[in-house]
Amino acid sequence: MAVDEGEMGAGAGRSERKRQAVLAAATQTFLKSGYLGANMDEIAASSGVSKQTVYKHFGSKEALFIEIVTSMTGAADIRVHTAPADPETAEALRQFLFDYAYRQLKVVMTPALMQLRRLVIGEVSRFPDLARVLYERGPQRAMTVLSGIFGRLDARGLLNCPEPQLAATTFNWLAMAEPVNRAMLLGDGELPTDAQLRAVATEAVRVFLAAYGRS
Amino acid sequence: MAVDEGEMGAGAGRSERKRQAVLAAATQTFLKSGYLGANMDEIAASSGVSKQTVYKHFGSKEALFIEIVTSMTGAADIRVHTAPADPETAEALRQFLFDYAYRQLKVVMTPALMQLRRLVIGEVSRFPDLARVLYERGPQRAMTVLSGIFGRLDARGLLNCPEPQLAATTFNWLAMAEPVNRAMLLGDGELPTDAQLRAVATEAVRVFLAAYGRS
Repeated sequence: MAVDEGEMGAGAGRSERKRQAVLAAATQTFLKSGYLGANMDEIAASSGVSKQTVYKHFGSKEALFIEIVTSMTGAADIRVHTAPADPETAEALRQFLFDYAYRQLKVVMTPALMQLRRLVIGEVSRFPDLARVLYERGPQRAMTVLSGIFGRLDARGLLNCPEPQLAATTFNWLAMAEPVNRAMLLGDGELPTDAQLRAVATEAVRVFLAAYGRS
Repeated sequence: MAVDEGEMGAGAGRSERKRQAVLAAATQTFLKSGYLGANMDEIAASSGVSKQTVYKHFGSKEALFIEIVTSMTGAADIRVHTAPADPETAEALRQFLFDYAYRQLKVVMTPALMQLRRLVIGEVSRFPDLARVLYERGPQRAMTVLSGIFGRLDARGLLNCPEPQLAATTFNWLAMAEPVNRAMLLGDGELPTDAQLRAVATEAVRVFLAAYGRS
Protein backbone atom coordinates (compact mmCIF):
# COMPACT_ATOMS: atom_id res chain seq x y z
CA MET A 1 0.00 0.00 0.00
CA ALA A 2 1.32 3.48 -0.81
CA VAL A 3 2.11 5.87 2.03
CA ASP A 4 -1.10 7.61 2.99
CA GLU A 5 -1.27 11.39 2.73
CA GLY A 6 -2.54 11.40 6.32
CA GLU A 7 0.80 10.23 7.60
CA MET A 8 2.67 13.45 7.00
CA GLY A 9 2.50 17.25 7.16
CA ALA A 10 -0.69 19.07 6.28
CA GLY A 11 -2.19 15.75 5.25
CA ALA A 12 -2.05 14.56 8.86
CA GLY A 13 -4.35 17.37 9.96
CA ARG A 14 -6.74 16.67 7.11
CA SER A 15 -6.77 12.98 7.91
CA GLU A 16 -7.43 13.65 11.60
CA ARG A 17 -10.25 16.05 10.70
CA LYS A 18 -11.80 13.35 8.51
CA ARG A 19 -11.44 10.84 11.32
CA GLN A 20 -13.21 13.19 13.75
CA ALA A 21 -15.95 13.88 11.22
CA VAL A 22 -16.57 10.16 10.79
CA LEU A 23 -16.59 9.64 14.55
CA ALA A 24 -19.12 12.44 15.09
CA ALA A 25 -21.41 11.24 12.30
CA ALA A 26 -21.12 7.62 13.43
CA THR A 27 -21.98 8.56 17.02
CA GLN A 28 -25.19 10.22 15.86
CA THR A 29 -26.06 7.30 13.61
CA PHE A 30 -25.43 4.58 16.20
CA LEU A 31 -27.35 6.43 18.93
CA LYS A 32 -30.28 6.96 16.57
CA SER A 33 -30.43 3.60 14.80
CA GLY A 34 -28.80 1.13 17.17
CA TYR A 35 -25.86 -1.09 16.34
CA LEU A 36 -27.56 -3.36 13.82
CA GLY A 37 -29.59 -0.53 12.31
CA ALA A 38 -26.57 1.75 11.77
CA ASN A 39 -25.55 1.86 8.14
CA MET A 40 -21.92 2.41 7.10
CA ASP A 41 -23.00 4.04 3.83
CA GLU A 42 -25.08 6.54 5.77
CA ILE A 43 -22.17 7.25 8.14
CA ALA A 44 -19.83 7.85 5.20
CA ALA A 45 -22.34 10.09 3.42
CA SER A 46 -23.14 12.21 6.46
CA SER A 47 -19.47 12.72 7.29
CA GLY A 48 -18.66 13.65 3.68
CA VAL A 49 -16.11 10.90 3.04
CA SER A 50 -16.08 7.67 1.08
CA LYS A 51 -17.02 4.39 2.71
CA GLN A 52 -13.43 3.28 1.97
CA THR A 53 -12.16 6.14 4.14
CA VAL A 54 -14.42 5.06 6.99
CA TYR A 55 -12.98 1.55 6.83
CA LYS A 56 -9.42 2.88 6.43
CA HIS A 57 -9.75 4.79 9.70
CA PHE A 58 -11.73 2.31 11.76
CA GLY A 59 -11.37 -1.11 10.16
CA SER A 60 -14.87 -2.45 10.82
CA LYS A 61 -18.29 -1.49 12.08
CA GLU A 62 -17.55 -3.14 15.42
CA ALA A 63 -14.21 -1.36 15.79
CA LEU A 64 -15.92 1.93 14.98
CA PHE A 65 -18.54 1.35 17.66
CA ILE A 66 -15.89 0.35 20.22
CA GLU A 67 -14.11 3.61 19.38
CA ILE A 68 -17.33 5.54 20.03
CA VAL A 69 -17.90 3.78 23.36
CA THR A 70 -14.27 4.43 24.34
CA SER A 71 -14.42 8.04 23.29
CA MET A 72 -17.72 8.88 25.01
CA THR A 73 -16.88 7.09 28.25
CA GLY A 74 -13.35 8.50 28.26
CA ALA A 75 -14.71 12.04 27.93
CA ALA A 76 -17.16 11.40 30.78
CA ASP A 77 -14.41 9.90 32.94
CA ILE A 78 -12.21 12.98 32.52
CA ARG A 79 -15.09 15.22 33.57
CA VAL A 80 -15.96 13.14 36.66
CA HIS A 81 -12.47 12.45 37.99
CA THR A 82 -11.00 15.90 38.22
CA ALA A 83 -11.12 17.22 41.74
CA PRO A 84 -8.15 16.72 44.03
CA ALA A 85 -9.36 14.31 46.70
CA ASP A 86 -7.72 15.06 49.99
CA PRO A 87 -10.37 16.14 52.49
CA GLU A 88 -8.91 16.57 55.95
CA THR A 89 -11.97 17.14 58.09
CA ALA A 90 -15.36 15.48 58.44
CA GLU A 91 -17.00 18.53 56.91
CA ALA A 92 -14.57 18.61 53.98
CA LEU A 93 -15.21 14.90 53.47
CA ARG A 94 -18.95 15.43 53.33
CA GLN A 95 -18.47 18.22 50.80
CA PHE A 96 -16.06 16.11 48.72
CA LEU A 97 -18.54 13.21 48.62
CA PHE A 98 -21.42 15.46 47.65
CA ASP A 99 -19.38 17.16 44.93
CA TYR A 100 -18.21 13.82 43.55
CA ALA A 101 -21.71 12.28 43.45
CA TYR A 102 -23.32 15.40 42.02
CA ARG A 103 -20.63 15.80 39.36
CA GLN A 104 -20.88 12.12 38.39
CA LEU A 105 -24.67 12.38 38.10
CA LYS A 106 -24.44 15.57 36.02
CA VAL A 107 -21.97 13.98 33.62
CA VAL A 108 -23.59 10.57 33.28
CA MET A 109 -27.31 11.40 33.31
CA THR A 110 -27.39 12.74 29.76
CA PRO A 111 -29.51 11.48 26.86
CA ALA A 112 -26.40 10.50 24.84
CA LEU A 113 -24.73 8.44 27.57
CA MET A 114 -28.02 6.83 28.61
CA GLN A 115 -28.78 5.89 25.01
CA LEU A 116 -25.25 4.51 24.57
CA ARG A 117 -25.77 2.40 27.68
CA ARG A 118 -29.10 1.06 26.40
CA LEU A 119 -27.51 0.21 23.06
CA VAL A 120 -24.61 -1.78 24.44
CA ILE A 121 -26.85 -3.57 26.97
CA GLY A 122 -29.13 -4.61 24.13
CA GLU A 123 -26.13 -6.05 22.27
CA VAL A 124 -24.39 -7.85 25.17
CA SER A 125 -25.01 -11.35 23.86
CA ARG A 126 -23.79 -10.52 20.34
CA PHE A 127 -20.99 -8.08 21.24
CA PRO A 128 -19.86 -8.60 24.83
CA ASP A 129 -16.73 -6.48 24.29
CA LEU A 130 -18.77 -3.32 23.73
CA ALA A 131 -20.47 -3.62 27.09
CA ARG A 132 -17.24 -4.59 28.82
CA VAL A 133 -15.60 -1.38 27.60
CA LEU A 134 -18.55 0.63 28.92
CA TYR A 135 -18.44 -1.17 32.28
CA GLU A 136 -14.69 -0.73 32.69
CA ARG A 137 -14.75 2.93 31.65
CA GLY A 138 -17.91 3.66 33.64
CA PRO A 139 -18.85 2.06 36.97
CA GLN A 140 -15.63 0.10 37.38
CA ARG A 141 -13.42 3.13 36.81
CA ALA A 142 -15.45 5.18 39.30
CA MET A 143 -15.31 2.42 41.90
CA THR A 144 -11.55 1.97 41.48
CA VAL A 145 -10.86 5.69 41.92
CA LEU A 146 -13.18 5.89 44.95
CA SER A 147 -11.68 2.76 46.45
CA GLY A 148 -8.22 4.34 46.43
CA ILE A 149 -9.54 7.52 48.03
CA PHE A 150 -11.58 5.64 50.64
CA GLY A 151 -8.59 3.45 51.56
CA ARG A 152 -6.53 6.56 52.35
CA LEU A 153 -9.42 8.13 54.29
CA ASP A 154 -9.77 4.93 56.29
CA ALA A 155 -6.04 4.96 57.10
CA ARG A 156 -6.32 8.60 58.22
CA GLY A 157 -9.31 7.83 60.43
CA LEU A 158 -11.88 9.85 58.47
CA LEU A 159 -13.79 6.79 57.28
CA ASN A 160 -14.37 3.37 58.80
CA CYS A 161 -14.08 1.09 55.79
CA PRO A 162 -11.62 -1.79 56.17
CA GLU A 163 -12.82 -2.96 52.73
CA PRO A 164 -12.58 0.25 50.67
CA GLN A 165 -13.72 -1.47 47.49
CA LEU A 166 -16.99 -2.50 49.14
CA ALA A 167 -17.49 1.06 50.39
CA ALA A 168 -16.73 2.41 46.91
CA THR A 169 -19.28 0.06 45.34
CA THR A 170 -21.88 1.12 47.88
CA PHE A 171 -21.26 4.83 47.37
CA ASN A 172 -21.22 4.60 43.58
CA TRP A 173 -24.62 2.90 43.47
CA LEU A 174 -26.17 4.93 46.29
CA ALA A 175 -25.81 7.88 43.94
CA MET A 176 -26.23 6.30 40.51
CA ALA A 177 -28.57 3.32 40.85
CA GLU A 178 -31.99 4.87 40.93
CA PRO A 179 -31.49 7.55 38.25
CA VAL A 180 -29.62 5.22 35.88
CA ASN A 181 -32.00 2.29 36.18
CA ARG A 182 -35.03 4.51 35.95
CA ALA A 183 -33.66 6.14 32.79
CA MET A 184 -32.72 2.75 31.35
CA LEU A 185 -36.31 1.51 31.49
CA LEU A 186 -38.41 4.68 31.35
CA GLY A 187 -36.44 6.64 28.78
CA ASP A 188 -35.09 10.15 28.60
CA GLY A 189 -38.39 11.68 29.70
CA GLU A 190 -37.37 10.43 33.14
CA LEU A 191 -33.95 12.09 33.31
CA PRO A 192 -33.75 13.85 36.69
CA THR A 193 -33.76 17.62 37.11
CA ASP A 194 -30.83 19.41 38.69
CA ALA A 195 -32.74 19.70 41.97
CA GLN A 196 -33.41 15.95 41.92
CA LEU A 197 -29.74 15.22 41.27
CA ARG A 198 -28.78 17.36 44.27
CA ALA A 199 -31.32 15.56 46.45
CA VAL A 200 -30.03 12.14 45.32
CA ALA A 201 -26.42 13.16 46.01
CA THR A 202 -27.33 14.57 49.44
CA GLU A 203 -29.13 11.39 50.52
CA ALA A 204 -26.35 9.19 49.11
CA VAL A 205 -23.81 11.05 51.25
CA ARG A 206 -26.02 10.89 54.35
CA VAL A 207 -26.59 7.13 54.04
CA PHE A 208 -22.94 6.46 53.17
CA LEU A 209 -21.59 8.40 56.16
CA ALA A 210 -24.10 6.78 58.51
CA ALA A 211 -22.66 3.40 57.51
CA TYR A 212 -18.98 4.19 56.89
CA GLY A 213 -18.32 7.48 58.69
CA ARG A 214 -16.53 8.00 62.01
CA SER A 215 -18.26 9.43 65.11
CA MET B 1 -66.23 -15.13 12.81
CA ALA B 2 -67.52 -18.57 13.87
CA VAL B 3 -67.45 -19.49 17.54
CA ASP B 4 -64.01 -20.82 18.34
CA GLU B 5 -63.64 -24.33 19.74
CA GLY B 6 -61.54 -22.78 22.51
CA GLU B 7 -64.55 -20.99 23.92
CA MET B 8 -66.30 -24.04 25.31
CA GLY B 9 -65.82 -27.34 27.14
CA ALA B 10 -62.87 -29.58 26.31
CA GLY B 11 -61.92 -27.09 23.62
CA ALA B 12 -61.19 -24.47 26.27
CA GLY B 13 -58.52 -26.67 27.84
CA ARG B 14 -57.01 -27.38 24.45
CA SER B 15 -57.01 -23.71 23.55
CA GLU B 16 -55.35 -22.78 26.84
CA ARG B 17 -52.71 -25.47 26.32
CA LYS B 18 -51.99 -24.07 22.87
CA ARG B 19 -51.74 -20.58 24.33
CA GLN B 20 -49.25 -21.76 26.95
CA ALA B 21 -47.23 -23.64 24.32
CA VAL B 22 -46.99 -20.50 22.19
CA LEU B 23 -46.01 -18.42 25.22
CA ALA B 24 -43.25 -20.87 26.21
CA ALA B 25 -41.86 -21.12 22.67
CA ALA B 26 -42.08 -17.36 22.18
CA THR B 27 -40.23 -16.72 25.45
CA GLN B 28 -37.35 -18.91 24.29
CA THR B 29 -37.30 -17.29 20.87
CA PHE B 30 -37.38 -13.69 22.12
CA LEU B 31 -34.68 -14.31 24.74
CA LYS B 32 -32.47 -15.97 22.15
CA SER B 33 -33.02 -13.70 19.15
CA GLY B 34 -34.12 -10.37 20.60
CA TYR B 35 -37.30 -8.54 19.70
CA LEU B 36 -36.48 -7.66 16.10
CA GLY B 37 -34.76 -10.99 15.47
CA ALA B 38 -37.65 -13.08 16.78
CA ASN B 39 -39.61 -14.67 13.96
CA MET B 40 -43.33 -15.39 14.28
CA ASP B 41 -43.06 -18.33 11.86
CA GLU B 42 -40.40 -19.89 14.04
CA ILE B 43 -42.50 -19.35 17.18
CA ALA B 44 -45.50 -21.00 15.52
CA ALA B 45 -43.42 -23.93 14.27
CA SER B 46 -41.69 -24.59 17.58
CA SER B 47 -44.97 -24.47 19.50
CA GLY B 48 -46.67 -26.80 16.99
CA VAL B 49 -49.46 -24.43 15.95
CA SER B 50 -50.21 -22.37 12.88
CA LYS B 51 -49.09 -18.76 12.65
CA GLN B 52 -52.79 -17.87 12.49
CA THR B 53 -53.26 -19.46 15.91
CA VAL B 54 -50.40 -17.39 17.32
CA TYR B 55 -52.05 -14.21 16.08
CA LYS B 56 -55.48 -15.37 17.25
CA HIS B 57 -54.18 -15.71 20.81
CA PHE B 58 -51.88 -12.72 20.98
CA GLY B 59 -52.86 -10.29 18.24
CA SER B 60 -49.42 -9.01 17.31
CA LYS B 61 -45.73 -9.53 17.89
CA GLU B 62 -45.64 -6.57 20.26
CA ALA B 63 -48.65 -7.81 22.24
CA LEU B 64 -47.01 -11.24 22.47
CA PHE B 65 -43.82 -9.73 23.85
CA ILE B 66 -45.73 -7.57 26.34
CA GLU B 67 -47.48 -10.76 27.49
CA ILE B 68 -44.08 -12.41 28.01
CA VAL B 69 -42.75 -9.45 29.99
CA THR B 70 -45.94 -9.39 32.07
CA SER B 71 -45.85 -13.11 32.68
CA MET B 72 -42.16 -13.33 33.63
CA THR B 73 -42.20 -10.28 35.88
CA GLY B 74 -45.51 -11.34 37.44
CA ALA B 75 -44.08 -14.75 38.32
CA ALA B 76 -40.99 -13.11 39.84
CA ASP B 77 -43.13 -10.66 41.80
CA ILE B 78 -45.16 -13.49 43.35
CA ARG B 79 -41.98 -15.24 44.45
CA VAL B 80 -40.44 -12.10 45.97
CA HIS B 81 -43.47 -10.69 47.76
CA THR B 82 -44.61 -13.63 49.85
CA ALA B 83 -43.46 -13.26 53.42
CA PRO B 84 -45.75 -11.65 55.96
CA ALA B 85 -44.00 -8.43 56.93
CA ASP B 86 -44.62 -7.60 60.53
CA PRO B 87 -41.32 -7.69 62.42
CA GLU B 88 -41.78 -6.50 66.00
CA THR B 89 -38.21 -6.28 67.27
CA ALA B 90 -34.97 -4.85 65.92
CA GLU B 91 -33.60 -8.36 65.47
CA ALA B 92 -36.74 -9.54 63.64
CA LEU B 93 -36.51 -6.44 61.46
CA ARG B 94 -32.91 -7.22 60.55
CA GLN B 95 -33.88 -10.79 59.68
CA PHE B 96 -36.88 -9.62 57.64
CA LEU B 97 -34.72 -7.19 55.65
CA PHE B 98 -32.07 -9.82 54.98
CA ASP B 99 -34.66 -12.40 53.91
CA TYR B 100 -36.35 -9.90 51.62
CA ALA B 101 -33.14 -8.76 49.92
CA TYR B 102 -31.76 -12.28 49.58
CA ARG B 103 -35.05 -13.63 48.18
CA GLN B 104 -35.29 -10.73 45.71
CA LEU B 105 -31.71 -11.31 44.55
CA LYS B 106 -32.29 -15.07 44.16
CA VAL B 107 -35.43 -14.52 42.09
CA VAL B 108 -34.18 -11.68 39.91
CA MET B 109 -30.54 -12.64 39.29
CA THR B 110 -31.34 -15.38 36.77
CA PRO B 111 -30.17 -15.60 33.15
CA ALA B 112 -33.75 -15.40 31.83
CA LEU B 113 -34.75 -12.26 33.77
CA MET B 114 -31.40 -10.57 33.08
CA GLN B 115 -31.72 -11.32 29.37
CA LEU B 116 -35.31 -10.04 29.36
CA ARG B 117 -34.10 -6.84 31.01
CA ARG B 118 -31.34 -6.39 28.42
CA LEU B 119 -33.81 -6.94 25.61
CA VAL B 120 -36.34 -4.38 26.75
CA ILE B 121 -33.64 -1.82 27.55
CA GLY B 122 -32.26 -2.26 24.04
CA GLU B 123 -35.73 -1.56 22.64
CA VAL B 124 -36.73 1.41 24.82
CA SER B 125 -36.70 3.96 22.03
CA ARG B 126 -38.76 1.79 19.67
CA PHE B 127 -41.06 0.16 22.25
CA PRO B 128 -41.21 2.23 25.43
CA ASP B 129 -44.24 0.29 26.71
CA LEU B 130 -42.25 -2.93 27.04
CA ALA B 131 -39.72 -1.32 29.35
CA ARG B 132 -42.41 0.49 31.30
CA VAL B 133 -44.14 -2.83 32.05
CA LEU B 134 -40.82 -4.26 33.27
CA TYR B 135 -40.13 -1.20 35.43
CA GLU B 136 -43.59 -1.19 36.97
CA ARG B 137 -43.59 -4.94 37.62
CA GLY B 138 -39.96 -4.95 38.80
CA PRO B 139 -38.25 -2.14 40.73
CA GLN B 140 -41.38 0.01 41.12
CA ARG B 141 -43.47 -2.83 42.52
CA ALA B 142 -40.70 -3.75 44.99
CA MET B 143 -40.29 -0.14 46.09
CA THR B 144 -44.05 0.32 46.55
CA VAL B 145 -44.36 -2.79 48.71
CA LEU B 146 -41.31 -1.82 50.77
CA SER B 147 -42.55 1.73 51.15
CA GLY B 148 -45.77 0.50 52.73
CA ILE B 149 -43.87 -1.75 55.12
CA PHE B 150 -41.33 0.93 56.02
CA GLY B 151 -44.08 3.47 56.66
CA ARG B 152 -45.65 1.13 59.25
CA LEU B 153 -42.25 0.39 60.81
CA ASP B 154 -41.58 4.10 61.08
CA ALA B 155 -44.93 4.65 62.78
CA ARG B 156 -44.15 1.83 65.24
CA GLY B 157 -40.72 3.27 66.01
CA LEU B 158 -38.65 0.45 64.48
CA LEU B 159 -37.32 2.60 61.64
CA ASN B 160 -36.57 6.28 61.33
CA CYS B 161 -37.80 7.08 57.83
CA PRO B 162 -40.23 9.99 57.60
CA GLU B 163 -40.08 9.50 53.81
CA PRO B 164 -40.70 5.75 53.47
CA GLN B 165 -40.55 5.87 49.68
CA LEU B 166 -37.03 7.28 49.79
CA ALA B 167 -35.99 4.58 52.26
CA ALA B 168 -37.57 1.92 50.04
CA THR B 169 -35.70 3.21 46.99
CA THR B 170 -32.44 3.18 48.93
CA PHE B 171 -32.96 -0.34 50.25
CA ASN B 172 -34.02 -1.75 46.90
CA TRP B 173 -30.90 -0.48 45.15
CA LEU B 174 -28.52 -1.19 48.04
CA ALA B 175 -29.31 -4.83 47.37
CA MET B 176 -29.94 -4.91 43.62
CA ALA B 177 -27.77 -2.22 42.01
CA GLU B 178 -24.36 -3.80 41.81
CA PRO B 179 -25.42 -7.33 40.78
CA VAL B 180 -28.01 -6.12 38.25
CA ASN B 181 -25.82 -3.49 36.62
CA ARG B 182 -22.83 -5.78 36.53
CA ALA B 183 -24.89 -8.52 34.87
CA MET B 184 -26.41 -6.01 32.43
CA LEU B 185 -23.01 -5.06 31.06
CA LEU B 186 -20.82 -8.10 31.73
CA GLY B 187 -23.30 -10.84 30.87
CA ASP B 188 -24.41 -14.01 32.60
CA GLY B 189 -20.85 -15.12 33.30
CA GLU B 190 -20.98 -12.46 36.01
CA LEU B 191 -24.11 -13.67 37.79
CA PRO B 192 -23.28 -13.81 41.52
CA THR B 193 -22.93 -17.03 43.48
CA ASP B 194 -25.20 -17.79 46.39
CA ALA B 195 -22.46 -16.76 48.84
CA GLN B 196 -22.07 -13.45 47.01
CA LEU B 197 -25.82 -12.83 47.13
CA ARG B 198 -25.80 -13.43 50.89
CA ALA B 199 -22.88 -11.04 51.32
CA VAL B 200 -24.63 -8.36 49.24
CA ALA B 201 -27.85 -8.76 51.24
CA THR B 202 -25.97 -8.61 54.55
CA GLU B 203 -24.14 -5.41 53.64
CA ALA B 204 -27.32 -3.85 52.23
CA VAL B 205 -29.08 -4.45 55.56
CA ARG B 206 -26.12 -3.12 57.57
CA VAL B 207 -25.89 0.10 55.55
CA PHE B 208 -29.66 0.56 55.51
CA LEU B 209 -30.05 0.16 59.27
CA ALA B 210 -27.10 2.48 59.92
CA ALA B 211 -28.96 5.19 58.01
CA TYR B 212 -32.61 4.43 58.80
CA GLY B 213 -32.56 2.30 61.94
CA ARG B 214 -33.35 3.34 65.51
CA SER B 215 -30.88 3.04 68.39
